[in-house]
Amino acid sequence: METKGILTVVSGFSGAGKGTLMHALLQRYPERYALSISATTRKPRDGEADGREYFFKTRDEFEKMIAKGELIEYARYVENYYGTPRAYVEEMLESGRDVILEIEIQGAMKVKEAFPDTLLLFVTPPTAGELERRLTRRGTETAEVIASRLCRAAEEAQGMDRYDYLIVNDDLETCVEEMHSIIQGEHSRSFRNTEFIQKIKEDLQGLKGE
Amino acid sequence: METKGILTVVSGFSGAGKGTLMHALLQRYPERYALSISATTRKPRDGEADGREYFFKTRDEFEKMIAKGELIEYARYVENYYGTPRAYVEEMLESGRDVILEIEIQGAMKVKEAFPDTLLLFVTPPTAGELERRLTRRGTETAEVIASRLCRAAEEAQGMDRYDYLIVNDDLETCVEEMHSIIQGEHSRSFRNTEFIQKIKEDLQGLKGE
Repeated sequence: METKGILTVVSGFSGAGKGTLMHALLQRYPERYALSISATTRKPRDGEADGREYFFKTRDEFEKMIAKGELIEYARYVENYYGTPRAYVEEMLESGRDVILEIEIQGAMKVKEAFPDTLLLFVTPPTAGELERRLTRRGTETAEVIASRLCRAAEEAQGMDRYDYLIVNDDLETCVEEMHSIIQGEHSRSFRNTEFIQKIKEDLQGLKGE
Repeated sequence: METKGILTVVSGFSGAGKGTLMHALLQRYPERYALSISATTRKPRDGEADGREYFFKTRDEFEKMIAKGELIEYARYVENYYGTPRAYVEEMLESGRDVILEIEIQGAMKVKEAFPDTLLLFVTPPTAGELERRLTRRGTETAEVIASRLCRAAEEAQGMDRYDYLIVNDDLETCVEEMHSIIQGEHSRSFRNTEFIQKIKEDLQGLKGE
């Protein structure tokens, strides 16, 4: 069966708990998963290390990576670039780990185009009302910020159908196991095991002929 | 999320251990799964009960079921009919149980046509050599019977790509849990949760407008 890792994109509403969920997944199955590390031109903050939080690049280095096709996808926010280095992802996939990439929908679609076997997961709270409650109860955001997040969530919801699976984040424990189980189950998909199928077909033809 | 059951077709090589596997799955999760019961015109054998092993029908009754479209699929082997009654399957699916239907590839494709959301699983030993060993070590079959089974397996292998998942039956325990996990994971597929997505889209539009 398939021994290469699966590239898994995780998107979802801001406030759906993606970060906590992925952190828990990685912590529970450190041998199984690797988190994709983005490249960025923004300056490292205190406590951030190159190759851990981000690969920190100068604008010139980043633009060379773009030119050489070394990024699976990239985007520019305000004055900084953010992107997904292809080499790191491919290395992790080859080593057999499933690579998790947290990214919003536009990026997700670009990744899917570059790697058609990418698994797309969308994390959502059980209801829209619950999303609103989670955004509100942080208590740190103004009404305007909450309104703008809900507005953005309504936009993001338009793309939910394009994901393979919905991960309903109600209880964290259940949700981590569900996500793990979905990703691991995907390893058994026929289209991810064409070599296995080809081999068994040929061997059966051989045995039949004996 | 989806509360209706998933119609799950299980096919696989003779000797792959489908029967044992499904029996173990049903025994471990009796609330979760229901086995589809076939209708047949063959006579009940000792110990077989109507509505348990089969729904026993006369040829006339069976042909009326065909005419009325009451069978999802049917086939005739030698002088007897075998088929899958639609009513029983639909009733179980509505009640929220995942319905398991053991059937060979031609039947599987007919079911998929009638119910496009059908999940198709193919049970296989890890290698062709292992299939041969399992067929041989029963010790009850002549060389001709084994040769004919291998020949049939080579034919069946041609259809493996059309199944959604491969279930490699190496260790029974592992395999039962893997099959359970795959079927349960399928409940989270986006295309099986269009109502949930529609609802969250509408509700977010509503909240955004507040």
